[in-house]
Amino acid sequence: MAKMEKCQKIMELAKRRGFFWQSYEIYGGESGFIDYGPLGTLLKRKIEQKWVDEFVRKEGFMLIDTPVLAPSIVFEASGHTTYFTDPITTCKKCGRKWRADHLLEEQAKISGEGLSLEELDKKIKENNVHCPECKGELEPPKFFNELFKTTIGPYSENIGYGRPETAQGIFSNFKRLYELARNKLPFGVAQVGRCVRNEISPRQGPIRLRELTIMELEFFFDPENPRCDKLVEVKNEKLRILPEKLLVEGKDKPVEVTVEEALKEGYIKSEWNAYFMVKAKKFVESLGIPAEKQFFKEKLPTERAHYSTQTYDQLVELSCWGAVEVSGHAWRSNYDLKMHMVYSGEDLRVYIPYNEPKKIRKFLVKPIKKAFVESFGDEALRVMRLVNLTPENELVNSLKKNGHYDLKGDGKTYRITLNHVEVEEVYVEEKGKRFLPNVVEPSFGLDRLTYATLEYAYSEKDNRIVLRLPRNITPIEVAVFPLMTKDGLPEKAVEVYRLLIKHGFTVEYDESGSIGRRYARMDEVGTPLAITIDYQTLEDNTVTIRDRDSWKQIRVKIDNLPKTLEKYFKENVGFDDLGKL
Amino acid sequence: MAKMEKCQKIMELAKRRGFFWQSYEIYGGESGFIDYGPLGTLLKRKIEQKWVDEFVRKEGFMLIDTPVLAPSIVFEASGHTTYFTDPITTCKKCGRKWRADHLLEEQAKISGEGLSLEELDKKIKENNVHCPECKGELEPPKFFNELFKTTIGPYSENIGYGRPETAQGIFSNFKRLYELARNKLPFGVAQVGRCVRNEISPRQGPIRLRELTIMELEFFFDPENPRCDKLVEVKNEKLRILPEKLLVEGKDKPVEVTVEEALKEGYIKSEWNAYFMVKAKKFVESLGIPAEKQFFKEKLPTERAHYSTQTYDQLVELSCWGAVEVSGHAWRSNYDLKMHMVYSGEDLRVYIPYNEPKKIRKFLVKPIKKAFVESFGDEALRVMRLVNLTPENELVNSLKKNGHYDLKGDGKTYRITLNHVEVEEVYVEEKGKRFLPNVVEPSFGLDRLTYATLEYAYSEKDNRIVLRLPRNITPIEVAVFPLMTKDGLPEKAVEVYRLLIKHGFTVEYDESGSIGRRYARMDEVGTPLAITIDYQTLEDNTVTIRDRDSWKQIRVKIDNLPKTLEKYFKENVGFDDLGKL
Repeated sequence: MAKMEKCQKIMELAKRRGFFWQSYEIYGGESGFIDYGPLGTLLKRKIEQKWVDEFVRKEGFMLIDTPVLAPSIVFEASGHTTYFTDPITTCKKCGRKWRADHLLEEQAKISGEGLSLEELDKKIKENNVHCPECKGELEPPKFFNELFKTTIGPYSENIGYGRPETAQGIFSNFKRLYELARNKLPFGVAQVGRCVRNEISPRQGPIRLRELTIMELEFFFDPENPRCDKLVEVKNEKLRILPEKLLVEGKDKPVEVTVEEALKEGYIKSEWNAYFMVKAKKFVESLGIPAEKQFFKEKLPTERAHYSTQTYDQLVELSCWGAVEVSGHAWRSNYDLKMHMVYSGEDLRVYIPYNEPKKIRKFLVKPIKKAFVESFGDEALRVMRLVNLTPENELVNSLKKNGHYDLKGDGKTYRITLNHVEVEEVYVEEKGKRFLPNVVEPSFGLDRLTYATLEYAYSEKDNRIVLRLPRNITPIEVAVFPLMTKDGLPEKAVEVYRLLIKHGFTVEYDESGSIGRRYARMDEVGTPLAITIDYQTLEDNTVTIRDRDSWKQIRVKIDNLPKTLEKYFKENVGFDDLGKL
Repeated sequence: MAKMEKCQKIMELAKRRGFFWQSYEIYGGESGFIDYGPLGTLLKRKIEQKWVDEFVRKEGFMLIDTPVLAPSIVFEASGHTTYFTDPITTCKKCGRKWRADHLLEEQAKISGEGLSLEELDKKIKENNVHCPECKGELEPPKFFNELFKTTIGPYSENIGYGRPETAQGIFSNFKRLYELARNKLPFGVAQVGRCVRNEISPRQGPIRLRELTIMELEFFFDPENPRCDKLVEVKNEKLRILPEKLLVEGKDKPVEVTVEEALKEGYIKSEWNAYFMVKAKKFVESLGIPAEKQFFKEKLPTERAHYSTQTYDQLVELSCWGAVEVSGHAWRSNYDLKMHMVYSGEDLRVYIPYNEPKKIRKFLVKPIKKAFVESFGDEALRVMRLVNLTPENELVNSLKKNGHYDLKGDGKTYRITLNHVEVEEVYVEEKGKRFLPNVVEPSFGLDRLTYATLEYAYSEKDNRIVLRLPRNITPIEVAVFPLMTKDGLPEKAVEVYRLLIKHGFTVEYDESGSIGRRYARMDEVGTPLAITIDYQTLEDNTVTIRDRDSWKQIRVKIDNLPKTLEKYFKENVGFDDLGKL
C-alpha cells in the first residue's frame, strides 16, 4: 500500500464513519481544529482513561484539573510570554503569513530549528525561499507569540491567556500539592486537559492543532536523592534511542539499548526520566503501535524548550508525516518552581530535617533593597528573590573573584555586584535543608496518539477495511444483529441488546442491510465482536458471536453472554477459547 | 447545624483534603476559577462518567467532542455576540464594575432578571443602590458581552471566541451528525466539555464560574412527530415543578405532579423534555441528592435565553446559596439550526419522503436579489435565506393582507414587501417534506453537581466528618492499612494493596498514625471500605474490612478480597451481606 494512500484512507474513514473531521466545516473549516465524532470521542476517551489508569491509579499519583485560562502573571513566570514564540514571515506581495522555519524546511530542506531570526532571514534569502501561495518575496522573520490572549473580567487591563500546557496548573499549585502528599518527596501529579497554541499556519490535519488535549505528569523529587526506586523493574527493558551524543556524531538512526546501558552511557541523565520512558513505550505499544515503530530522540540544546535540562521526544512512524512526536520527556530541573517563587513571592521550597543537626560555615547574603531598585527598577523585587535562591557559595565566590555575579533567570542576565549585597560569614547549626524539588515530566499528545492508534489499527482484508484496534479501546464493544427483520428476530435481538447494555457494555444494534454488510460496517470501525440472532436462537436461545479479526464464529447461550463477554473484555481471554468456556 | 456553617465546613474540607480550591492562589487567587485537587478530580470524573453512561451509552446516543475556541461567525449565528450579555454598572467614585441586576437583588431584594437597562437604572436610583465597596454612586448600566474574545492565527482580524456552551459544536455539525445517524430522526448527540463565560464579578466560589464543564445533550426530532416513544416508561413518575402558569398566579412553591399530569396541564410542552427531566431527577438522586431537595422551575419569557421556547431549570437546595440551578431543560425549537443555515448558506434541512406523493397548491416565492441588497445591504444574503425558510403561506397571506411581512430572526425584524419577491401560485406534486428538526436540550453543570454532591454527602458522627458519598462515585474505593508498622505487617499490606490495584480498584495505602486516625481520614473523604492487615492476617491470611457508614467490620480471606469488593462495587451488595458470601 502506498504511503500517501494509507493516510488518505484513514482520513476518509475518519470522516465517513465519524472518528474526526476538520472543525467548522459549514463555515469553510478552520485550520488547526478538529471535531471528534461519536466513534473518535469514545476512542479518545478510552485512550485517556487507559493513560490515567497507567500513570495515575497504578502509580498512586495524584490527578488534578485546573483551568485553561490563566491570568498573565502565570505565563510571565513560566516564561511563555517571552519564549513561546515561533518565527513568522509575511509575504511582501500577498500579505500572507507563514512559519519561516517551516518554509525553509519545505523549500530548501534545511532545518530551521534553533536558528536566530538573522540566520533564518539569511538562509531564506540565500535559498530563494518564497511565498508558497503567490511566489512573492518574504519579509525578514519576526517572533510571533503563540499564546491565545484574552481579557478576564470587565477590566481591559486584566490580560489572560489560554494555557499551552497543563503543567503550570500543577507547578503553581505545588505548595498545596506537597501538603496533600503529606510533605514527602517524591510524588507525581498528573493532569489531562485542553490546551491551546496559536500556531501560525497549521496545515497537518490532526497532527498540528491549535487546540489539543495533553496528558502530562510532573514528578517531583529531591535532586540530592535522584535515584528511582522502581528502576529495578525496568533496567533490562530495551529502548530505541537517538541521544544527543550520537546526533552530534552525525548519526541519524536510533540504537537499541537497555535502560541500564542508557543510564551508564549518560544517554539519559535522570533515572526517573528513563523509568517513564519505558512506561511510555509500553503504553504506546498497548495502543497497538509496535515497539519497533517507536523511538526516542533527544532534543539538541538549541531545540529544547526554555525550561528543559534534557528532553527526549517519543516518536512514532506515521505514513504521511514521517516520525511524529507523541510524547515528550523533559527534565525541567527546578525552573518552573523557581520562577513561580520569584514571581509570586511565595516560598515554594520544601524542608527536610536532617537526622542530626549540622554545624556549618556559610555566608549570609543580605540584599540591599535600595541598590536593587536603583539597578533593576520594577524588577528589583524579583531579582532579590532570585538572589535568595542562589547558592551562597557560588554567589560570594564569584563576587570575591570577579567583583560581580551574573545572575541568570527569567530569560535575562542580571549583574549583581558588591554594592547590591551585604555578606557575612557565619557558623550556624542547620536542622534541615530547604530546597526546590526537581521535576521530570512525561507529556503526551492525546490527539496524535488517537490518530496514530487509528493508523496502526488500519488493515485491509478481501478489499475491505478491518480496524484491528486493541479490544480494550474500541469505541463499540459489541454489535447485535437480527439475521432478518421478521419472524420475531428483531424483538429477540433487542432483548439481547438490552441485556448487554444492562451489563455495562457499549453496544450497537443494527438491522439494516444484509448481514455481511453489517459485519463489514462493524469491522471497519473496529468492533471486535458481533452477535447475531438467527432462527436457531428462537429454538435453543443461543446466538452466534463473530470475531472481527478471524471472522470465525462460535455459538453461545444468551444466559452466558454477559459472562462470556466479561471474560473477553476484562480477562483478555482469546476468542478461540471463549467457545470452550 | 447552622446553614452557613455547613457550607463553610465543606469549603474547609475541600481545601484541606484536596477536593477543590480557588485557582492561582499564590498570585492572590482569580475569581470565577477553581482547581480540582486529586480527590475532586476523581469525584468529578466519576460523575461525568455516570452521566455519559446514563445519557449516552444507555440511550444509544452519540457523544462528540469539539473545540472550545470558535471563529466569530459561529457565535454571530448562534446569537451569542448579540445576546450573551449581562448588565454592568461602574462606580462613579472608585471605578469598580458590578453586575447591575445582582446589586439590585442584594441591596433592594428586587429581581433584576429581564429588566431593560432603563428599568434597571430607574430601580437602582429609586432604591439607592450603591457600590458595595466604596458606597459610591453608580453609572447607568450598559450591556457587557460575556464571550471571551481572542484572535485565531496571526491575522488580527480573525476574531475567535471561547464557547459559552458546547451546544454550538453540535448544531454546526448537524449535517454530518444526521448522516452518522443514518438519516433518521429522532436522535441525540451529547457533549461534555469546558466552557468559558466572562462573568462580570463572580463571587460565589464553585457556584458561579468563569470556566466550567458542561454536559449537554441535543435531541433532534421531527416537529410533526413530537411524541416520545419512551414516555410510557416515565409517565407515572412524579416531578416537583413550578411552571409559568403557577408562577404568574403568584405561587412560589413547587407542586408534585406526575409526568402525565404535567403534560396534560400544559406545564411541560414537549414530551421529550418531560422524559429528560425525569432522567435528570433520577440522575441527581443517584448522586445522593434526594428528590425532595430538587425541583424544576420554569423560566418566565423575560428570563429565557434568546433561543428558547420553554425552559425548566432543575434546582437543588444548597446551604449557602439557596436553590441553585444544576441543569436546564430548554426546548430550543429550530432556532440554532435555522441560524447556522442562514449564516453558512448550507442547507441543514432533513428530507423525509412521503409514503405517496402529495399534490398540493402552493406559492412559489422567489426573492429579488437587487431589492434585498437595496433594503438590507450586507445582510441581504442572510435575509434572503431567512425568507426561504419562512412558510410560504404565512408570508404570502401577510403580503396580500398588509402589503408587508415582518420577518423575525437574528434578533432583528426585517420588513419584506411586495417589491422584494415574485410570487407564483403553482400546483406541484411533492414526494416528501424538507424541514429543520426541533431540539430539546438537557444541559448540566458538572461543577455545581460536584459541589452539591459533596454537600449532600457531608455528615458528622461523634464530632468527626463522614462523607457519605454513593459508593460508585467515591474518589478512593478502598484503603489498605497495616495495623502496626512492624512485624511484617506493612509488607503484607503492600501485597494486598498491589493485589487490589491489579484488580482495577482505586486504592490508598496508609501506614502513618493510629488506626483510628487512619479510619477517620478515610471517612472524611468518603472512602467506603478500609482493609486492615493485623496479626491474625499473618496466621490465617484474613483481613478486616470496615464500613465507612456503620463502622462495622467483617473478616475476609485475602484470596476472596477481589471478588468481595467486586460484589460491593459492581453488584451493589450491602456491606452486611458481604460477610455472608
